[in-house]
Formats: sequence, C-alpha cells, structure tokens
Amino acid sequence: MKINGKSYKTIWFENNLVKIIDQTKLPHQFIIKELKTVKESINAIKQMEVRGAPLIGATAAYGLVLSIIENNDLSYLKKSSEQLVNSRPTAINLKWAVDRMMKKLLGVNNSDILKIALDEAKAITIEDENFCKNIGLNGLKIIEDIANKKKDTVNILTHCNAGWLATIDWGTATSPIYHAHQKGIKVHVWVDETRPRNQGANLTSYELNEEGIPNTVITDNAGGILMQRGQVDMCIVGTDRTLSNGDVCNKIGTYLKALAAKDNNIPFYVALPSSTIDWNIKDHNKIPIEERNPKELSYVEGLDEDNKVKKVRIYSEKSKAMNLAFDITPAKYVTGLITEKGVCEASEKGLKGLFK
Amino acid sequence: MKINGKSYKTIWFENNLVKIIDQTKLPHQFIIKELKTVKESINAIKQMEVRGAPLIGATAAYGLVLSIIENNDLSYLKKSSEQLVNSRPTAINLKWAVDRMMKKLLGVNNSDILKIALDEAKAITIEDENFCKNIGLNGLKIIEDIANKKKDTVNILTHCNAGWLATIDWGTATSPIYHAHQKGIKVHVWVDETRPRNQGANLTSYELNEEGIPNTVITDNAGGILMQRGQVDMCIVGTDRTLSNGDVCNKIGTYLKALAAKDNNIPFYVALPSSTIDWNIKDHNKIPIEERNPKELSYVEGLDEDNKVKKVRIYSEKSKAMNLAFDITPAKYVTGLITEKGVCEASEKGLKGLFK
Repeated sequence: MKINGKSYKTIWFENNLVKIIDQTKLPHQFIIKELKTVKESINAIKQMEVRGAPLIGATAAYGLVLSIIENNDLSYLKKSSEQLVNSRPTAINLKWAVDRMMKKLLGVNNSDILKIALDEAKAITIEDENFCKNIGLNGLKIIEDIANKKKDTVNILTHCNAGWLATIDWGTATSPIYHAHQKGIKVHVWVDETRPRNQGANLTSYELNEEGIPNTVITDNAGGILMQRGQVDMCIVGTDRTLSNGDVCNKIGTYLKALAAKDNNIPFYVALPSSTIDWNIKDHNKIPIEERNPKELSYVEGLDEDNKVKKVRIYSEKSKAMNLAFDITPAKYVTGLITEKGVCEASEKGLKGLFK
Repeated sequence: MKINGKSYKTIWFENNLVKIIDQTKLPHQFIIKELKTVKESINAIKQMEVRGAPLIGATAAYGLVLSIIENNDLSYLKKSSEQLVNSRPTAINLKWAVDRMMKKLLGVNNSDILKIALDEAKAITIEDENFCKNIGLNGLKIIEDIANKKKDTVNILTHCNAGWLATIDWGTATSPIYHAHQKGIKVHVWVDETRPRNQGANLTSYELNEEGIPNTVITDNAGGILMQRGQVDMCIVGTDRTLSNGDVCNKIGTYLKALAAKDNNIPFYVALPSSTIDWNIKDHNKIPIEERNPKELSYVEGLDEDNKVKKVRIYSEKSKAMNLAFDITPAKYVTGLITEKGVCEASEKGLKGLFK
C-alpha cells in the first residue's frame, strides 16, 4: 500500500540485505532500515521494529536467509532458527515460518542452500500477500452487505494494527476495508489507540490516512459506548494465534471489544491467514502470553514543541506497572473468521471445513 | 489522606480563599492552588484541576462562596450558579451541590449570606467525608468476606480515580480499600491507567502509594485477561451519576470492565454517596455524555530526561481523534451499590430501600 503516494511492501530483499520500515518510528518518522545479520533480524522482531504475526513470520524467514549469508554451516542455521523462534512467544507464524524454511533447508547442498532459502522466504511473502488479498475479497462481501442494508457509511471498529504494516501488504483486518474503499463503498474506521504501544493511533490511523480512508482514533475505553449508541456497525480485528476451536489470541483488549460487540448485537469478525492457525494447542490457557517490559506503559514517545521526537515518563517512578501483550477472545464471541479461503464459523467444524 | 506523610483534604477554605490541589499536575508536581473568584472555580472544574463527582460538587459550593465575596448581588449569584452548573455536564453532584446552596441562599439577608454560604459549603464537604467514610465501612465487609474465604491477598481492580482525590477524603471506590488496609487485610489494587487523562496511573496509583497500599498500573486493555486468569477477586469503581434504576454512568471504559467481570463471575461493585444518584432521569440515553477536546488523547505530559515536565504530541497531526468522557454500565452488570447507608442491589427497589 502507499506511503506518501508511493507503493511499498513492509519487507523486501535487496543487494543481499533485508529492508524493513522501522515501525517503532512511525508515525513521526518514516525510516527504512537495513538488516544485515540474523541477530539484527531477531532484534528487529524483539524491539518490534517489525510486528504483526504475518510480518514477524516473514522477517524470521528472511532472517534465516541472512544467517546463511553470514555462515552457511548447518549448526549456525539451526542455532539461528531456535533464536528466531524464541524472539517472541505468542504469534504462531514465527514458528510456522521457521519450521517451513527449515523443512526446505535441511539436507540441502551448501552450494544451493542460499538460493533455496531466498526462494522460500520470497514464496512466504508472496503467499502472505495473496492470502491477505483474498481475506480482503472475502471480507468485502460482509461490508458490502451492511452498506446495502444501511445505505450510509459503514462504521468499522478495529483494535491494534492488523493492517498492511502487520503483514506484507493489504493487512488482515484492514484488507476488507481497503477493498471496500477501492470499490467505492463509504467506510469510516474507529481506530482503538491500543495502549501501551499505541499501534492503532501510530500505525492503523497512519496507514488509513495514507490511503485516504476516513478514520477516527479513540481510546481503548471508548468502543463500548460507541456500540451502545449504535455508532459501530461491525468490528474486524486480526489475530496472533487462532486455535482450531476458534478461540482467538490477539492484542490485549480485543476480548473487551468482543464482549461489548456481543452485548450490543454487533458482528465481531476476526481476519486471519491460515498461517496463524494453531492446530496443536487445544486449550487457550496453554498459549504463552507475552509479558513485555512495563516501561512500554510508563514511557511514551511523541513530538515536542520543536517537532523533535522526545520520550517522556508519564507515570511516577513509584508506580509499578505490568504489561501483558495479548488476551483471549473465546470463540463464542466471534461472529466469523475471515480467511483466505472464505468466511467460516469460529469453531473446529468451521475451520476444518475450509482447511483439511 | 496523606501526601508525603502529611494529612490533606482535597479542598479547604482559608483566608477568604479556596485552596485545592492542582490535580492536573500530579503525580509529577504537588501544587496547592488558590481560587479567588467564581471564575477561577469554574476554570478549575473545566480544566479538571479538581475532578471527581463529589469534589466537583464541593468546588461548586465553594465557588458560590467566592461569588458572594466578589459581589453579593443576587443577580451575580444566580449567574454564577448557572455558570457553575454548566461547567461540566455529566457529574450530577455539580447540580446537586449548587441547588442545595441556592436553596439556602435565596431570600437570605445580604448581611448573613456569606456566613450561611460558607457554613453550607463546609457542611457539604463534611457530609461528603462522612458519606465516604461510611461507604468504606460498608464496602470493608465485602473485602473482608473475600479475604476470609481466600486466605490470601485480595486483588481489587479499579478504573479511573474514585479515590480520596475525587472526593474530600477517603474516596468512594478506594474507601473500602483504605479501611481494609487499615484493618490489616492484605489488598493489592490493579489500577487501570484510564486513558486519555491517565487518572488511574496519575492519581489512583499515586494516592495508594502515598498510603502504602500495594498496587500495579495496567493498561485499560488488560483487565479482561487478568480476570480470565483469576487474578482479580473483585472490582470497585466510582460513578458520576447513578440512575434510580441502578444504571451507572462513570468514566469511559467502566462498562467494558463490568462486561468482563460478568463473563468471569467476578463481583463488580459501584461505590457512591447518595449525592450522585439522579432520581429524575429514567433512561440512561438521556444522560448528557461529555465530549472533551481530542487533544487530551493526542497530547501527553510527562517528565523528560532532565525531569522537566514536557508535553508531547503522540499522534500524527493527520489523525483525527474523538474524546467521549463517560459510558453507561447497565444495572444488570452491577453486583451491588456500596452507599453511605449500606450495600444494595443496583435497582430502584435496592436504592429506594436505602433512600426513601
């Protein structure tokens, strides 16, 4: 999608380097960063310069390419793959992408390994792009139906950033929105700020603005009353891991919006590529929920009066904080899952109907 | 309660001036501000230097005292009372306190009016203190019951600041907590940050720290998963206006926590002095919900690396924002109302049982 009128992907390979948009700097600065080593890839994932389940997966795949360029010894590759998988715990795509790469790479000749790795990493990104495009086309029908009934702007609430910046292109939750907008359907997006890292305000609102889609940032507290007042027609969010029973693990706060949607009879959809489905874990209590540094709450970055990026501490130093990154939305609160293969019920039956 | 080990009230009259703690400066600076005129009182309410339904009421009462000191003409007093009532729309105590003052003051001799006004304003603050103390004693029993069953620290979640800083002393939601702590019951408070103005982090955590009560600040998004994990034993919040049917209007985001509490079978209590009950409005859709400046979302104040207070803009200037200040928690999600007269069901029957 576009930034300053120019089309970008979130990650690409060029001159033996991986290039990413440093998402910790948005919306105040647009900086393209080069990753030269697997260590830099791991760091980019940990520091959330890249984030979003699909993009984390792609970055890990390219991380293995960089690992091979550095040292094509098998033991180095294996160590790299382990470190990549452990760089963040919750998003399932990370492990999925690394496993997929390693399956291709183990037993391959040293002379071929780089090309094979690069082809597979590229295949992962192209596949994700296509998945996201199809998610958009499948979700478009839902928005279209609401627009036809309402005959007015469709108000869609989303949480965090499941936009193109979280994937390679199109996004998951935003893809139906982009497709609707391109088809001339009037949409307006309520963007949850999404504390503590404000990815709604910093990334989702930013990318919607760059594509010219009307949107309004609200606090994470606000979705409930907007739903009570009838100012939300539907919700679409992404997911970091979806269990085969339809339970959805996503950015903390998602669950609260799903409860409010249920309470107000508003459809609540989750958009996902099949790479985020966890077919193994059956109980959502077994999903590792990442606990991040509490400083992500107590420090905030913004522009000062001279338009310089400045970090300020907003809490008293005496105040302890805790920073869980994800929560669980039980399947019963999910109206449907929008996948690359179609829309299904959030259940084992629904998912197995689309994915054998 | 205490700040730096010294006991304070949130508002007091001294040398013909009203003194308040400027709550927009906490937790970074502790500044006692003098209000000399009714205009300064109105401004203090509008700018939220004083906030919290009971404290707003008391400030309005003292605002009328200042109005009389400025000009004891009846028309000036009437104009002042109207301006005070209109300074913020949602908290019911504001109108309640002004009406109570005016009832006392209309028809009174010019020579007596100042003394009568001052006595009545003081009576309002003393009454609020007693109400809050009794709310604490009534709520204490609920915490005690949980502590006796659990035989471990009681984890209480609260939203925004319904602490002593929102009242004259003790607070509403915090009063049972302070009483439990003073009785030696182990409590730990999950403090919702409470965007956009962060009154949870800035005020509730601050006042709990000053009283030595263990607490942890969390994002407004986090309460759901903590409840899912069994890390919350009960919720207590305040209210800006409670309808006679038990519907509760409180700081935006309260509703989402009530939904999560219901979904996880966690008791959700609302603490209130009877001055916050609106016996007139029957339909919560008729409550005026204040919409404040969206800059309260996009700008944040904190300390820079030199410990200087600095304001930074956290959103892109292109991002539009919307700032609703309150939401509605329907009575069916409220386990009970903790009032100065006892704990009752959140219903007309419950409230009328305590207040004829």
